[in-house]
Amino acid sequence: MKAVVLLSGGLDSTVCMAVAHSKGYELFPISFNYNQRHARELESAESVAQYYNVTKHIIIETNMNVIGGSALTDGQLTVPTGNIDSHQIPVTYVPARNLIFLSYALGYAEVTGADKIFIGVNALDYSGYPDCRPEFINLFQQVADYSTKAGVQDHRKIVIETPLLQLTKKDIVLLGKNLDAPLQFTTSCYNGEPVACGECDSCLLRLKGFAEAGTIDPIIYRTRSE
Amino acid sequence: MKAVVLLSGGLDSTVCMAVAHSKGYELFPISFNYNQRHARELESAESVAQYYNVTKHIIIETNMNVIGGSALTDGQLTVPTGNIDSHQIPVTYVPARNLIFLSYALGYAEVTGADKIFIGVNALDYSGYPDCRPEFINLFQQVADYSTKAGVQDHRKIVIETPLLQLTKKDIVLLGKNLDAPLQFTTSCYNGEPVACGECDSCLLRLKGFAEAGTIDPIIYRTRSE
Repeated sequence: MKAVVLLSGGLDSTVCMAVAHSKGYELFPISFNYNQRHARELESAESVAQYYNVTKHIIIETNMNVIGGSALTDGQLTVPTGNIDSHQIPVTYVPARNLIFLSYALGYAEVTGADKIFIGVNALDYSGYPDCRPEFINLFQQVADYSTKAGVQDHRKIVIETPLLQLTKKDIVLLGKNLDAPLQFTTSCYNGEPVACGECDSCLLRLKGFAEAGTIDPIIYRTRSE
Repeated sequence: MKAVVLLSGGLDSTVCMAVAHSKGYELFPISFNYNQRHARELESAESVAQYYNVTKHIIIETNMNVIGGSALTDGQLTVPTGNIDSHQIPVTYVPARNLIFLSYALGYAEVTGADKIFIGVNALDYSGYPDCRPEFINLFQQVADYSTKAGVQDHRKIVIETPLLQLTKKDIVLLGKNLDAPLQFTTSCYNGEPVACGECDSCLLRLKGFAEAGTIDPIIYRTRSE
């Protein structure tokens, strides 16, 4: 039983690895180096992959930044702070990112013979990204069934698993702790410094999750806003 | 009126550029360097982009070959010859390739403000690739509508256009000639040598198209199997 896991090195994808591991899958993590500002995430992804003793961890290199349009890949835009309650889709949104990531994962699942793809999308604390919603995942599942040799010729379905879809950040922290996920290796900060800033949207959301779970975040912050 | 055009530098995508140009769109071609054997295609794509005098031509660099599983990206596999009537999906199939390409194109359409994406897929002479079928395109359109900020927040639809979907290679050649597409710059050969081999599936399909259209292919072949 094999599973491809989209592993960014953040909290959610690491808990997702833990879930796939707990269900007994042989893990095939896939990460992306897309000139994101927080390339430090990749080191986290490598540490998490090593923790789970995987045979192979592939890293897709792509200059997605030539597309532009996001504060995470475009050096001209500023990463916002303290904005997590806005109803606008924030500038940290990377156009079509989850669609691109899932597409690569689908190709990799086909080649490795995996029958699952785990992705740590979350519809509650999701920062407003459209490609984290259940409708998006359901439609991607349909296109996946029709776009691969596995699905069309061999009638082998590759199922997208979203174990965190309906969880709050608090629930994700508790689930991670329960499954002994290596949360100490994870990176969430948008700023990509060696030490998390504690002030960007992503740090704020993470700190709120740990606070509500009543547990201490094992990573180090430059400032703590709790 | 802007359109993103998936431009490989092959015959079909070049005719697709010609169609988008003839409809008056400002053209935003996007090409991919994915360690394919026929990187010579990229030079063709650049020549075609210059022919249409585009403002910007982006090339996505990606090591898609780490996924493996295709004769076009995996040096261990052999490119087949003389196999165009087989009903099996051939080893030149690259897992999830069109899905990956369309996903990037969607992100780029969102950023440039394009309302169309032109892709030269073809359901007739399509070598059996699952991701060239109308069902695949229709499902991708649905997922596109749900996965972008453009679609969800701004209610701006980005439409996938497939002008070659129901055409034979003969029809494509005739359409290209009719629209003055620069067919002399295109590359179709799977082997990526400076001169087309005239023997691989892709050369055979192309030569058959020109022969049926009653016109001479303007590119040079090492051998001609007609």
